[in-house]
Amino acid sequence: MSELYQLSKAGKLCVPAMNVNDSVTKQKFDNLYCCRESILDGLKRTTDIMFGGKQVVVCGYGEVGKGCCTALKALGAIVCITEIDPICALQACMDGFRVVKLSEVIRQMDVVITCTGNKNVVTREQLDRMKNGCIVCNMGHSNTEIDVASLRSPELTWERVRSQVDHIIWPDGKRVVLLAEGRLLNLSCSTVPTFVLSITATTQALALIELFNAPEGRYKQDVYLLPKKMDEYVASLHLPNFDAHLTELSDEQAKYMGLNKNGPFKPNYYR
Amino acid sequence: MSELYQLSKAGKLCVPAMNVNDSVTKQKFDNLYCCRESILDGLKRTTDIMFGGKQVVVCGYGEVGKGCCTALKALGAIVCITEIDPICALQACMDGFRVVKLSEVIRQMDVVITCTGNKNVVTREQLDRMKNGCIVCNMGHSNTEIDVASLRSPELTWERVRSQVDHIIWPDGKRVVLLAEGRLLNLSCSTVPTFVLSITATTQALALIELFNAPEGRYKQDVYLLPKKMDEYVASLHLPNFDAHLTELSDEQAKYMGLNKNGPFKPNYYR
Amino acid sequence: MSELYQLSKAGKLCVPAMNVNDSVTKQKFDNLYCCRESILDGLKRTTDIMFGGKQVVVCGYGEVGKGCCTALKALGAIVCITEIDPICALQACMDGFRVVKLSEVIRQMDVVITCTGNKNVVTREQLDRMKNGCIVCNMGHSNTEIDVASLRSPELTWERVRSQVDHIIWPDGKRVVLLAEGRLLNLSCSTVPTFVLSITATTQALALIELFNAPEGRYKQDVYLLPKKMDEYVASLHLPNFDAHLTELSDEQAKYMGLNKNGPFKPNYYR
Amino acid sequence: MSELYQLSKAGKLCVPAMNVNDSVTKQKFDNLYCCRESILDGLKRTTDIMFGGKQVVVCGYGEVGKGCCTALKALGAIVCITEIDPICALQACMDGFRVVKLSEVIRQMDVVITCTGNKNVVTREQLDRMKNGCIVCNMGHSNTEIDVASLRSPELTWERVRSQVDHIIWPDGKRVVLLAEGRLLNLSCSTVPTFVLSITATTQALALIELFNAPEGRYKQDVYLLPKKMDEYVASLHLPNFDAHLTELSDEQAKYMGLNKNGPFKPNYYR
Repeated sequence: MSELYQLSKAGKLCVPAMNVNDSVTKQKFDNLYCCRESILDGLKRTTDIMFGGKQVVVCGYGEVGKGCCTALKALGAIVCITEIDPICALQACMDGFRVVKLSEVIRQMDVVITCTGNKNVVTREQLDRMKNGCIVCNMGHSNTEIDVASLRSPELTWERVRSQVDHIIWPDGKRVVLLAEGRLLNLSCSTVPTFVLSITATTQALALIELFNAPEGRYKQDVYLLPKKMDEYVASLHLPNFDAHLTELSDEQAKYMGLNKNGPFKPNYYR
Repeated sequence: MSELYQLSKAGKLCVPAMNVNDSVTKQKFDNLYCCRESILDGLKRTTDIMFGGKQVVVCGYGEVGKGCCTALKALGAIVCITEIDPICALQACMDGFRVVKLSEVIRQMDVVITCTGNKNVVTREQLDRMKNGCIVCNMGHSNTEIDVASLRSPELTWERVRSQVDHIIWPDGKRVVLLAEGRLLNLSCSTVPTFVLSITATTQALALIELFNAPEGRYKQDVYLLPKKMDEYVASLHLPNFDAHLTELSDEQAKYMGLNKNGPFKPNYYR
Repeated sequence: MSELYQLSKAGKLCVPAMNVNDSVTKQKFDNLYCCRESILDGLKRTTDIMFGGKQVVVCGYGEVGKGCCTALKALGAIVCITEIDPICALQACMDGFRVVKLSEVIRQMDVVITCTGNKNVVTREQLDRMKNGCIVCNMGHSNTEIDVASLRSPELTWERVRSQVDHIIWPDGKRVVLLAEGRLLNLSCSTVPTFVLSITATTQALALIELFNAPEGRYKQDVYLLPKKMDEYVASLHLPNFDAHLTELSDEQAKYMGLNKNGPFKPNYYR
Repeated sequence: MSELYQLSKAGKLCVPAMNVNDSVTKQKFDNLYCCRESILDGLKRTTDIMFGGKQVVVCGYGEVGKGCCTALKALGAIVCITEIDPICALQACMDGFRVVKLSEVIRQMDVVITCTGNKNVVTREQLDRMKNGCIVCNMGHSNTEIDVASLRSPELTWERVRSQVDHIIWPDGKRVVLLAEGRLLNLSCSTVPTFVLSITATTQALALIELFNAPEGRYKQDVYLLPKKMDEYVASLHLPNFDAHLTELSDEQAKYMGLNKNGPFKPNYYR
């Protein structure tokens, strides 16, 4: 996505573009809801972990981090987080997670999970300080979050114990369990439910239809968020799966709220 | 807030205005985090309720509704919600709440809570169908959500059982427990922690300072969201209360992310 | 209860006695379910606390401690526990609570809660090390858990800030917030729902009826647990409140399980 | 286990036996803690399920049922339960689960899970009424809980879609997804963490040592529960994995409580 915005900023975007990724529905499903389940699935399929009582640090408390933290906490893990953004950090506090620097806690952790979108979030120095058996994996969108390259050095031995699972062995015998060589755990070691794919595909299709049908001049050579109403439409198409019954505004209520009875129901920035 | 936008739309706003209400930090504290606690507090101070096993319907799954639902579910209540907005409804599904129409469930409910911002969400007809002992209260921002006026009719008897608590008695002896005469429960029957007030006051003060200090021309006669960086600043000022330790970006990381090391860290629409 | 057992041991019990306190239903309601709600209620009524992000230590992870921990964690507090019993300690681990010694964490805590049944669980030395504003209260069944007597000494100033709330002020100005002078918070600063009282009263009444009606020789001068079947009967009498529908065993199923269709359904030690 | 008790009742047990299965530590790990994780793992490995918003009925609210319900609810499923035992049913209510008869809800369910230990809990008639795509599986200890035999009839087509997963196809095209042919999901489609095995093996080993070392006459030809103190010892051996620090009773405290400083700390029936 950010590439599109950079092209636009540089004046090099030659067609209108829709940032479907940041539509509320798609983002919540791709990140929060999907990762809430796949972090558990990915860890279970690859390791012998029992979640109860495990000390876990999650790097990044965005939607992916929130999903991972919720699931792990619910299953009895003791979770702390790292953040650069004070708003997300404060949310983590209010949700019951200690906000720490990675170096402060790295020695005690049983599991280290990255979901920042950044690079070198877990450094070789930190890998050196992990305890024996520590599991390291990446749920973020780049595979540079863990400095895996630094582990490919002669003093360390790599042992592939099963598909997607490497033991990195230090000279003193300490083993760190690296999953999917630092690539995305949710894609490498779990599956994405078709329900999530349906949300994504529907969002993309509607965005294309909108761009195709839009009267000339509505969209310029820029990047747009999906119109709120279409985002709501994607959601409404998926509600019958849950036998969910929406309430309709009465005329009087719509007038009182200053809303159209068919939406959109919220301002654009509402998530 | 919406009054400001209406003035602006009508071209009648004669100074720049800051919509502090929709800053992320203030909104989450005023609505989500504060109500998560005050719904429990308000109900406990006024009634004999035990939350475990109670059937509760929450009307509206915005930030206030999300806070109420989280708290009540955590204490063992069985919660369902009503919504007009398909995006919020889908979120409710994913969070484990059935999405229903009020009329479908009203007969079984032990507690009915409104947090929609709308009017006549609970009608006289629905009040007539509630079961004996049903508790009705409002956590939303208007006191028209419950049609209390319709209860002031000769066939019904009002009995004040204690401060903020009325029993409305039907001719057949059925009693509905109305809290705070339909006014805001969190303000009437609970307290707002000073921590929440501090977030609000800090946000307002910073907004005023920004408007006062801004170079001419930065703000016109319009309504603005608080700049992300100031929202982040409000959050960062409150982190020491939790002994939270923020991580700082390295130069390399900031460059990789295309971010200033001091923020803002997220796009404006990020919540 | 333990007095009865001591009398019995000493051969001084002159009538049969029923230990109603340890019936499953009564115990879960008096301790787990009731305290899960009253810990929140008691703290909210007496202090300005916001639970989110608060560091809390709960001393004792029995039924009362489990209730307190569940509720506080659910509302975003960061909770750790102390225990003497390895089985309860292991349960705390699996439920996601760090098991610590009080002295290790006392400096960082925002709230200290005792529920051990023991004495001097919080000592003067630990009170001396608490941080400014730390809240101390007792949910256990004795009021000796906090060494309150040690606080009645000339160098400390007591300031009653409202009913049930004392600030104990150290010479350097540090204030510790003592609730209910160390007596039971749930009884002093919260209310017991009538539903809990109904469970207790029903259990006691049935125990008396059983003792009165029992054929001679069934009960000797000893202490007995309530017969499982009567414990189940107490529960079944309270199920209609929740519109709960029990399943009945078919003849074939009852035979397969070796159970009477009307219970008891579990061995005596089952909780 | 129940076989041992039947032998004992019939006077046919020719050696002392230890019921290790009902030791607190082993039972909680084998049933509550292990199943809390394996229900998720088993469903994820075999199906495309997304837990959020799914309607699930769990038959039986013993330790296994409690584990399944906790995990599924935490991940956003909407869970109801069936029970024959009013005490367990009341616990389910207080934990936020509706207690229903299977026939009342079977049509709406997305997932049906048995954990009763009983037979024919899910009958052919109920299988006939399930909706298309409903997932059926067994977490209990017998594989007669689902009447699988009734599905092996000419009008139904079985289609093996992958290992451990059969689609049973009704003449009208409806498919029910049967996992592991009704055998235990946790053993067939998940893994048991070595930590759980360690608890079990340690318990068994200690029981054998106790029986071997016991002075003549301590144990007769009967079935015994593991002495509380050994149960506590098993727990204490596993605490270092969690870096858990037990508190020790002072002499004064031990005397006050009437306890030995080294345990046992609780009466035998305490769970």
